[in-house]
Amino acid sequence: MENLNIVNDDLMIEIMGKPGIPSPMNLSTEQNDGIADYVRDDETVLLESDRNVILEYVKKNEPLLAFEKAGPRQTIYYKPEQVKVAIVTCGGLCPGINNVIRSLVNELYYRYNVKDILGIRHGFAGFIPRLGYDPIVLTPEIVKEIHEKGGSILASSRGPQDIGEIVDFLEKRQVNILFTIGGDGTLQGAYEIFKEIRKRKRRISVIGVPKTIDNDIAYVHKTFGLETAFSVAAQAIRSAHTEAVGAPNGIGIVKVMGRNSGFIAANAALAINEVNFVLVPEIPFDLEGPQGLFSLLEARLKLKHHAVIIVAEGAGQNYVTSKDKDASGNVKLGDIGLFLRDAIKTHFKKDSDLDANIKYIDPSYLVRAVPANAHDAIYCIRLSQNAVHAAMAGKTGLLVGNWNSQFTHVPLKLATSQKKYLSPEEPLWLSVIEATGQPNIIKNE
Amino acid sequence: MENLNIVNDDLMIEIMGKPGIPSPMNLSTEQNDGIADYVRDDETVLLESDRNVILEYVKKNEPLLAFEKAGPRQTIYYKPEQVKVAIVTCGGLCPGINNVIRSLVNELYYRYNVKDILGIRHGFAGFIPRLGYDPIVLTPEIVKEIHEKGGSILASSRGPQDIGEIVDFLEKRQVNILFTIGGDGTLQGAYEIFKEIRKRKRRISVIGVPKTIDNDIAYVHKTFGLETAFSVAAQAIRSAHTEAVGAPNGIGIVKVMGRNSGFIAANAALAINEVNFVLVPEIPFDLEGPQGLFSLLEARLKLKHHAVIIVAEGAGQNYVTSKDKDASGNVKLGDIGLFLRDAIKTHFKKDSDLDANIKYIDPSYLVRAVPANAHDAIYCIRLSQNAVHAAMAGKTGLLVGNWNSQFTHVPLKLATSQKKYLSPEEPLWLSVIEATGQPNIIKNE
Amino acid sequence: MENLNIVNDDLMIEIMGKPGIPSPMNLSTEQNDGIADYVRDDETVLLESDRNVILEYVKKNEPLLAFEKAGPRQTIYYKPEQVKVAIVTCGGLCPGINNVIRSLVNELYYRYNVKDILGIRHGFAGFIPRLGYDPIVLTPEIVKEIHEKGGSILASSRGPQDIGEIVDFLEKRQVNILFTIGGDGTLQGAYEIFKEIRKRKRRISVIGVPKTIDNDIAYVHKTFGLETAFSVAAQAIRSAHTEAVGAPNGIGIVKVMGRNSGFIAANAALAINEVNFVLVPEIPFDLEGPQGLFSLLEARLKLKHHAVIIVAEGAGQNYVTSKDKDASGNVKLGDIGLFLRDAIKTHFKKDSDLDANIKYIDPSYLVRAVPANAHDAIYCIRLSQNAVHAAMAGKTGLLVGNWNSQFTHVPLKLATSQKKYLSPEEPLWLSVIEATGQPNIIKNE
Amino acid sequence: MENLNIVNDDLMIEIMGKPGIPSPMNLSTEQNDGIADYVRDDETVLLESDRNVILEYVKKNEPLLAFEKAGPRQTIYYKPEQVKVAIVTCGGLCPGINNVIRSLVNELYYRYNVKDILGIRHGFAGFIPRLGYDPIVLTPEIVKEIHEKGGSILASSRGPQDIGEIVDFLEKRQVNILFTIGGDGTLQGAYEIFKEIRKRKRRISVIGVPKTIDNDIAYVHKTFGLETAFSVAAQAIRSAHTEAVGAPNGIGIVKVMGRNSGFIAANAALAINEVNFVLVPEIPFDLEGPQGLFSLLEARLKLKHHAVIIVAEGAGQNYVTSKDKDASGNVKLGDIGLFLRDAIKTHFKKDSDLDANIKYIDPSYLVRAVPANAHDAIYCIRLSQNAVHAAMAGKTGLLVGNWNSQFTHVPLKLATSQKKYLSPEEPLWLSVIEATGQPNIIKNE
Repeated sequence: MENLNIVNDDLMIEIMGKPGIPSPMNLSTEQNDGIADYVRDDETVLLESDRNVILEYVKKNEPLLAFEKAGPRQTIYYKPEQVKVAIVTCGGLCPGINNVIRSLVNELYYRYNVKDILGIRHGFAGFIPRLGYDPIVLTPEIVKEIHEKGGSILASSRGPQDIGEIVDFLEKRQVNILFTIGGDGTLQGAYEIFKEIRKRKRRISVIGVPKTIDNDIAYVHKTFGLETAFSVAAQAIRSAHTEAVGAPNGIGIVKVMGRNSGFIAANAALAINEVNFVLVPEIPFDLEGPQGLFSLLEARLKLKHHAVIIVAEGAGQNYVTSKDKDASGNVKLGDIGLFLRDAIKTHFKKDSDLDANIKYIDPSYLVRAVPANAHDAIYCIRLSQNAVHAAMAGKTGLLVGNWNSQFTHVPLKLATSQKKYLSPEEPLWLSVIEATGQPNIIKNE
Repeated sequence: MENLNIVNDDLMIEIMGKPGIPSPMNLSTEQNDGIADYVRDDETVLLESDRNVILEYVKKNEPLLAFEKAGPRQTIYYKPEQVKVAIVTCGGLCPGINNVIRSLVNELYYRYNVKDILGIRHGFAGFIPRLGYDPIVLTPEIVKEIHEKGGSILASSRGPQDIGEIVDFLEKRQVNILFTIGGDGTLQGAYEIFKEIRKRKRRISVIGVPKTIDNDIAYVHKTFGLETAFSVAAQAIRSAHTEAVGAPNGIGIVKVMGRNSGFIAANAALAINEVNFVLVPEIPFDLEGPQGLFSLLEARLKLKHHAVIIVAEGAGQNYVTSKDKDASGNVKLGDIGLFLRDAIKTHFKKDSDLDANIKYIDPSYLVRAVPANAHDAIYCIRLSQNAVHAAMAGKTGLLVGNWNSQFTHVPLKLATSQKKYLSPEEPLWLSVIEATGQPNIIKNE
Repeated sequence: MENLNIVNDDLMIEIMGKPGIPSPMNLSTEQNDGIADYVRDDETVLLESDRNVILEYVKKNEPLLAFEKAGPRQTIYYKPEQVKVAIVTCGGLCPGINNVIRSLVNELYYRYNVKDILGIRHGFAGFIPRLGYDPIVLTPEIVKEIHEKGGSILASSRGPQDIGEIVDFLEKRQVNILFTIGGDGTLQGAYEIFKEIRKRKRRISVIGVPKTIDNDIAYVHKTFGLETAFSVAAQAIRSAHTEAVGAPNGIGIVKVMGRNSGFIAANAALAINEVNFVLVPEIPFDLEGPQGLFSLLEARLKLKHHAVIIVAEGAGQNYVTSKDKDASGNVKLGDIGLFLRDAIKTHFKKDSDLDANIKYIDPSYLVRAVPANAHDAIYCIRLSQNAVHAAMAGKTGLLVGNWNSQFTHVPLKLATSQKKYLSPEEPLWLSVIEATGQPNIIKNE
Repeated sequence: MENLNIVNDDLMIEIMGKPGIPSPMNLSTEQNDGIADYVRDDETVLLESDRNVILEYVKKNEPLLAFEKAGPRQTIYYKPEQVKVAIVTCGGLCPGINNVIRSLVNELYYRYNVKDILGIRHGFAGFIPRLGYDPIVLTPEIVKEIHEKGGSILASSRGPQDIGEIVDFLEKRQVNILFTIGGDGTLQGAYEIFKEIRKRKRRISVIGVPKTIDNDIAYVHKTFGLETAFSVAAQAIRSAHTEAVGAPNGIGIVKVMGRNSGFIAANAALAINEVNFVLVPEIPFDLEGPQGLFSLLEARLKLKHHAVIIVAEGAGQNYVTSKDKDASGNVKLGDIGLFLRDAIKTHFKKDSDLDANIKYIDPSYLVRAVPANAHDAIYCIRLSQNAVHAAMAGKTGLLVGNWNSQFTHVPLKLATSQKKYLSPEEPLWLSVIEATGQPNIIKNE
C-alpha cells in the first residue's frame, strides 16, 4: 500500500448514536479468563506492518493509519426486538453469497434475537416496487441448507436503480439495517444509499459485505469467492496442460475472469504450477518483436514442445478494443482469449516452422457458479458475523474487510475511492514470475 | 440393434493359428470349484436379448447372432518370452487412456511374463521414422502412477499415416502384438494394418481398444471415458442452472462434445436433471415456428423464469454449415454453441418482450482432459485385461467390446462398417424426454 | 446365474386388473418413426445370454427364462386423478435415495398428472400412527433440489413394523400405490405388505426400488448407490496407498461396507489399482500358514516394501464371531478391520524381522452419506421412471431391476428368495485377481 | 500473542557470513518501476498490529518486536555452482510435502542454477548409512509431476537419529544447505543439527519448512496442509450431518486430527456449519452434570432431533489417559472418539428416555494423505521460494514462516521454544462459538 494519500480521518467509522444496550452475547471483557472477549472501538489494525516505516511515522510525528477492528461490542445500539433487516445481493454471482446470507440470518436470529429479516430479490431492482420483485422473509429454516449451493437464493441483477426509491423502500418497510452484498458498483450504490439516509436523517445502518470474484476492492486484503474461483480455474490449467503435452507442440490457453485485476490468473498459475505465461490486465505485453509473447512462446516450444498460457479477461485490451457497455455501465471487454487463440494460430501457421496445436479453454461461469469451498465458507461466516456485530453496534457506511488476517471496518467512502490492482512489485507477482519462469516484462525494450 | 443386416460370419474372429501353449494364468476349467475359470471360444454373448425375437429366429431356422466372449484362454498362441508388443494411442484425448496403457503393460508383464513392450509416441506418426518420434520402452515401473492422470503418456496425434510404413515398422521391430487405442479413424487404421499384415502373411496380432468420448463405435455398448466425460459435463449443467436462476429470465446454455452422437449430452442431462432442452446431432430441430425452440423457450421462461439448454457440438449443423476438414479428415463443425447463444439473444431482443439473460458455458477440453473416474478406471482395466487375453490367444483383427455387461470380441471389419448413433427410440432417449419434459420433436408440423 | 432352480412362472408379474386407460404419455407404437415407443408386456430380457445355453434349452424344449421388460405401457390401469401414492425409505442410507424420491414425484406429477403423493417418514415406523411420525406431502417444489444431497429427506429407520398396521394405514389414507425404497429387509417387508393387501383384496400396487449399497439383491445386476460408494472407497485406497509408501514397510488397510457381499471392495480395488489383497465375505481366507495372509504380506513387503489391503466388513467373520443383532435383526458383525489391524501388528512384532507400519482407514459412513455421483444419478432417474410406469400400469408385487443393461420387472417373491453374492468364478473377481496379483485362494491347502 | 516474554534479539537471524555474490535473479531495487523488487534485510513484519499497543511500546521506549521479512536478496552468499543441497521430510504425512520438494528443486535449479540436490529418504533415518536408505538425486524432471500427489516421494519416518551422525553425513557429502520439512520434532532436530554445525564451524545452512497438519508451530500463522486437512474433514462433517438427520435422534460424531491443538476441528466446524459441539484439546469439558456435554446434547436432541459433534483427537484426554509413547516420543493418545461414541451410547441407553442413533466417523489418514488443495499448493510454492532465498543468502538456523500475510524468517530457537495453541479468546474460537451456538464453556460451575 504505497503512496497512501489518506489521513486517519478517512478511516473513521460513522455511528448512528451512542450504543446503550448491553449485548446479549454474554462474552467477557477480561483477557485470560478463558472466555472469548468483546472488541473495543479503540482496537485497531495498522495498515503498515514494517517496523522502520512505523518508526519513521513516529519520528515525523505523523499519525499511524489503522483500521477499526471488527468484532462484537459490549454495548449495542439497536434494540433487537425492534430491528428490521434487509439483505440484498447484486452483480455477478460469486461463490459464497449464500453462505453470507445464511450466516447473516443465523447470527442475527440466534445471537441477537433479531427475527425480522427481508431478502431483497434480484439486486437493487428488488427495492423498486414497480418491477414486481417482492422481497421474501428470511428465517433460519429457509436458509438452512443454502450454504451448500452456488449462486444466490435471492438472485441478482446488474445496473443501478434510483437511490431515492431505494431509501423510500427502506423507510416504508421500516428497515433499520441494510446489508449489501456486492462488488464495486454495489458498494458505490451502498455509499449513495448511506448518504441519502444521512441526508434524510434516518436511523438505518448500511453495511457492505464486499463480493467480487476479481478481488479488486481497495483496502480489503481478499474478497470471498476468490479462493474458490482460482481453485476451479486451476483445474482448467491442469486440463490445458494435459492437452498441451498430449499433442505435438501443444499450446494450452486458459482464459479466466478478471476484468481489471489478475488475482484469479496469478493464483491459479501458482495453484497448478504448469503455466508458462500469465497475462493480467495490470501488466501490458507485446505479441510481436523479440521480447514479445510469440517469440517467447516459440522458444519455449522448441525447448519443451508444449506451453500453457493463462490470460485474464481484462488483459491485453489494447489488442481487442471495444466500446460497448453492459447494464452496470462496465465497458464490455473485447475477447482476449479468442483473439489470442486465433493470433497464435495464425502466427505459427505463417511465421514459424512449428506446427502448433492450440487447445483453448474458457471455463467462464464454471469458476463462479459453484458452492464456496471450505476456505471461502469459513471466510464468509466470519465476514457475516462481523457485519452483524458492526450493524448492531450502530455503525454505518462501512464494509467489513480483512487486513493482515484480522477483520476490519472500512468506510465505504474510502473503499470506493479507488480499485485494487495486482502490482508487479508485490510478492504475489514475484512468486508468479519465479514459479513460471516468465520474464519480468513481455515487452520490447 | 434393429435391422442388423449381418450374418454370423461377420462376427467370426480371425486367429493366427492354433494355440498350443498352456496359459501361465493357472485358472480352472471346472465350474463351482471356487476358482476363476478360463473362457472357451464357444462361449458367446447374444446380440439380441428378447425372448420372442430369439424364438422367432429359432422358428425360422435362422442362426442366432452372437459375439465371441472375451477372457483368458486355457491355451495361448504366443510364447511369452518371444513376444514383442507395441501400444499406440491416437486421436483426441479421452479419460482412461493411461489406465489402458498401464493395465496392458501390467497384464502382459505380470500375468503373461511378456516384458518387451514398446510405447509408440504421438499416434500413428510414431511409426514413421522420419518424423522423429522414437518409441519408448514401457515397464510396470514407468506406468506405475499414470492411471491417476488425464491425457496419454504416449501423447497422440491426428491423421492417417502410410499403412505400408507402419507395417514396415512392426516387421523391422519384430512386433507380434499391436494394441491400438483409438476411435473410429484409429480402428479404420487398425483394420488396414491388419489387412496389410495378412497380405504380407506376418504373425502380428492387431487388437483395438475402442476409445471415443462420443461413444459412437458400433456393436460396442459403451466406450471408456464416456462416464467421466458426462460426469464433468454435468457439473457444467449445475453451473448453468445456478446462473440461470441467479438472473432475471436467465438462460443457461452448455455445449458439450459429441460430433455425431448425443450420448454425452443425453447422459449429462440425466445426471443433473436441471435441463429443459437437449439438442443432439441425431435429432433435428427447428428454431423458429410454433413448435420451434424459440417458442418453447419463451413459454418455459414465462412459466418458470429460467431455462437450461444442453447442446452437443454436432447438433443443428444445418444452421452452421462449414466445409473445412481437420487433420484426420473430419469435417470441421460449425460452432452451434456460439450460434445458439447469439441467435437466442437476438430473438429475445427482437421478437420477445422478455429480457433474457444468457449464460453460455463451453467446458470444451475440460470434459476429456481429466483422469478417468472410478467407473471408467474399472472399465479400462477390464477392457485391457481382455485385450491381452485375446492377443495372447493369437486372435487378431478385433476390438475388445462390451455387450449386455459382458466383454466381447468384435471384428474390426464389423465395428468399422458403421457408426453408432443415439436413437430417439431407444430407452435412453425416452428417459431424457421424460426427465426434461421436452417434446418428442422440436419441429414444426 | 448358474443353477437357476426357477421356472418361468416365477418371473410372472401380478397385475391389479386389465389396464383400460390410455397413457397420457403420448408415445409411439411404431418403430422407426423417430418417436420413443411404448413397451409391450411381451417384451422381455432373457436371463441367459450365451448362444449355446439358449440352443440347449430350445433343443430340450425347455422354456427360455426371461424378465418382463420395464417401460411405459400404452394402456394404464389407474386413473391419474384418483391415484394416491406413498413413498417410504427404509434401512441404511445410500447415495441416490433422494434422487429416487425426486424422480418418482416428478414422473408421477408431470408425466401422469398424479399430484397426491405422501412421503412416509422414518421408514416403516412412519406408517404406525402411535410412533408420531406424520407423513409429509411431496410436490415437485419440495423435491426440487434434493437430488444434490446425500441421505433421505424422508429419513429412515431400521427394523420391521406390524404388517397389518401398515396396510391399515394404506387403506385409511386411500393409498393406491406404495413405493418402497430399501434393501433386503425392506423388500421382504414389501412382499409381506403385498401379500396382506392381496389377502384383503385391495387395489394397492406395491413396487420396490431396490436400495442396497452392498449390491446383494438377487436377479438385479446392480443396485443404485454402489457406484458412488466404491468411488468414495477408492479414495480411501488412494490414501492408504500414499500412507503405505510414505513409511518404511507401510501397510495400508481399508475397511469398507459389505456385510455379505464384496462388491464395494472388489470394485474399489479395481478403481484404484493399488491394492494387493482384497478380502470379501464370500471367499474365506487363512491368516496363518504358508498360504495365509501373513506369509503373503511378508513376501510382498520384502519385495516392494509396502502393501495395501482392502477388507469388506463381512469378511473373515470366523475370526471375529459375535452373537448380537441390530434393530433390523441383522447379526452384528465382529470388526474384522480392527481385528486385522491388530493381528497384523502383532504378527510383525512377534513373528517377523520386519518393522511394519500399519495405517488403518475405516471410511465407514463416508462411502454412503454422500450425494449420488453422475452414474448413480442417471440410474436412479431411470429406475424411478420405470417404477412409476409399472405402478400406473397396475402391476404389483415387483421391484424394478436391471439385467443386461435393460430395465426389468422382478417379482418380489423371487427377489427375496435368496441373496446375491460375488462369485469367485465370475469375471469381476477374475479381474480382481488379475489386477491385484493375489492368489486365487489365500488358504492352506 | 499476549505475554510475549521475548526480546528483539530472539528474532535475529544468524548468517554464514557477509553475502558478496550478486543474485542471478535480475530483480529491481527501485520501487514503482514495474519490476519486482529484492527484499532488504531491514524489512520487517511487526508481531503486533494494534496501534495502541505499538504506541505504548514507543511511549515506553521499548523496542518493537518484528520478524525479518523473507524474500530474494540482492546479494547472496553461496556460489550456485558450488552449492550442494539436501532435502529431508520427517514425521507424519501432510498435504503439500511434494509441492514443497518440487518447488525447492525448481527454485534452486531454474532461479539460482543450483543443480546438485539430494533427496534424503525416510526422514532423519536417511542420513544414517547403516540403515541403508540411500539418498536419491532430485532434478526438475524427477519432481515434474509430484505436486499432484499426496504423501512424500522421499517418504518419511518417525523418531530422532544421532545428531552427530547426521552432521557427519552432511560433511561427508559436502552439503551446504539442508532443508528440513517437518513439524515440532523435526524443527527440534533441525535446531540441534544447526547447533552441531555451528560447533563444528561448518558452512552449512539449515532451513526449516514447518510442516504440521495440526498448525501448532509457534510464531507461524499457519502451516501448510492445514487448509487441505480441514477441507477434507469438512466433508466428514457433511456426512455425519446427513447420517444424523437420516435417523431418529441421530448423533453424528467426527473425530479429526489435532494432538495438541484444535485448529482442524475449529476450521472444519466453520467450513460446514452443521456442527453443534466442537471439542478441542485446549478447552476442557465435562460430560456429566447440568452444564456437561450429555445434558447439552440431550437438550439439543429434544429441540432439533439430531446433533453433530466434532472432536479433535487430543481433546478430553482426562477421560482416556494413556502412558504409551510412539517412536517420536509423543505420548500415545487415548482414543477420545471411540470413548465418546460409547459413553454417549451408554448415557442415552441408561440415563435418558431418548433412543439415540450414533454414527461415528473417523476419517483418520483421509485428511492428510491427499494432494494439497489450491490454497495449500500456492502456500507451499511461496514458502519454498522464500526458503531457497534465505538459504542462498547464507542465512541459517531459521524456518520460513508467515505472519500477517507476509513471509518471514523465524529463528529455530524461538519457534521450538513453545507450541502454538488455539486460544478460547482469539477471534477464530469466537467465530466457532457464534457459528455453533455451543456455550463458552461446557463445564459445571
